[in-house]
Amino acid sequence: MTQRPLILISNDDSINAPGILRLAECVPDNCDVIVVGPDAPHSGQSSAITVGTPLRITPRGTHGAAKLYAVNGSPVDCIKLALSKLVDRRPTLVLAGINHGSNSACNVVYSGTMGAVLEGATVGVTACGFSITDHAMDVDFAATMPYVRSIIEHLLANPLPAGVCLNVNMPAGVEPKGVRVCRAARAAWTDEYADYADPFGRPFYWLTGRMVNHDASATDTDEYWLAQGYITVVPVNVDMTAHNLIASFSKDFDR
Amino acid sequence: MTQRPLILISNDDSINAPGILRLAECVPDNCDVIVVGPDAPHSGQSSAITVGTPLRITPRGTHGAAKLYAVNGSPVDCIKLALSKLVDRRPTLVLAGINHGSNSACNVVYSGTMGAVLEGATVGVTACGFSITDHAMDVDFAATMPYVRSIIEHLLANPLPAGVCLNVNMPAGVEPKGVRVCRAARAAWTDEYADYADPFGRPFYWLTGRMVNHDASATDTDEYWLAQGYITVVPVNVDMTAHNLIASFSKDFDR
Repeated sequence: MTQRPLILISNDDSINAPGILRLAECVPDNCDVIVVGPDAPHSGQSSAITVGTPLRITPRGTHGAAKLYAVNGSPVDCIKLALSKLVDRRPTLVLAGINHGSNSACNVVYSGTMGAVLEGATVGVTACGFSITDHAMDVDFAATMPYVRSIIEHLLANPLPAGVCLNVNMPAGVEPKGVRVCRAARAAWTDEYADYADPFGRPFYWLTGRMVNHDASATDTDEYWLAQGYITVVPVNVDMTAHNLIASFSKDFDR
Repeated sequence: MTQRPLILISNDDSINAPGILRLAECVPDNCDVIVVGPDAPHSGQSSAITVGTPLRITPRGTHGAAKLYAVNGSPVDCIKLALSKLVDRRPTLVLAGINHGSNSACNVVYSGTMGAVLEGATVGVTACGFSITDHAMDVDFAATMPYVRSIIEHLLANPLPAGVCLNVNMPAGVEPKGVRVCRAARAAWTDEYADYADPFGRPFYWLTGRMVNHDASATDTDEYWLAQGYITVVPVNVDMTAHNLIASFSKDFDR
């Protein structure tokens, strides 16, 4: 008898964010679903892991057939701890999101959502992150959910190659025009800190800024297709090695 | 008149770790050096950014000709805030380390050291991280420092291509046999949590575990060369897009 597929879901907006429940609702009925999210928001936590303090797992009831848990740590902590302590078999998929806010372009590097996804891929599980381009907690996911369902069904039938995961971004407030597989736009943040002074006149700083798309004229990037109203799918490598440069750099550095 | 090169240095072990001072000592005398480290250890913080709390910069005096500062945030916060508020010109190099502990193989993903390096590369500055394979705060860096100096001098004369940075790992406790440019070994952590019960019988967990090298038989990886006593140089891509899969995935997902 074949076991039911097990789907492990996390996010970085916390177990209390609507997006993680909408994602669980997109999993087919023939799967078991376990949802393990941070107990508080962890946006921008990348692949951070908690090394200096203990972690706890708190059952948080169910949502439909999905079992929910909170962890007092990062998205990667959630995946690691779930794989170590909560699952009774190897998950078929690790999913993360639906993130309230875009994780396109260079933001994949800072994204806790994609941290959870990369963790799944690192241990050899097909993994995919979903994000919508609106930070609001009451953003309407309805138009995107058929696409999320379709991608999950595809991944259940077609596991990803080893070492690759997916970063899916979806436009908010529009009916998606379709789906495009594409590359991440090269971009960077600028004007990043707002200046303040505390009541004693001492300066402090708060992260803000705007993303500058260095690929603004390109028509093959996630930024381009999102702006056109498409859902973007970027295949992401776990191994960041620039393999194409090893031979030439060997001439420079080997001794 | 040409301006002196400016070198921006950070780490994840904190401004109080010996490794960051040893790295500053490896910069040639014709450079200006600014060292901006976290005010407390941030190992395993990856590319985490602080979004929900304010940041402060605290001058911490000098070390030789280097100016030192502490930031109450992550390694990436240190680089972002230094670029935004502390430097008077664009740095020639962003360096991070010398990390007390290896950042080889899959650990580049979790590494706060490499988070700082990736941040430098994201904004277009030649960037390199240095790590030694011993977590001890009193590890002896002496045998590695000529190599660190040599790599820094090479990078000053030969900026890296856009979108690429370096991850340098160095064996502790031996005279390095040489330097090898190579790829990151495919690896993952396992047996990751120690189990405890608090005085009230409630379970908690603490990150531990061991890294399993899935490339154990390969002779072209950083794990292999480190074990042979070599310093390893891995070229690392900022853009994680799996460009080689876009065409085939388009057939699967585009609609």
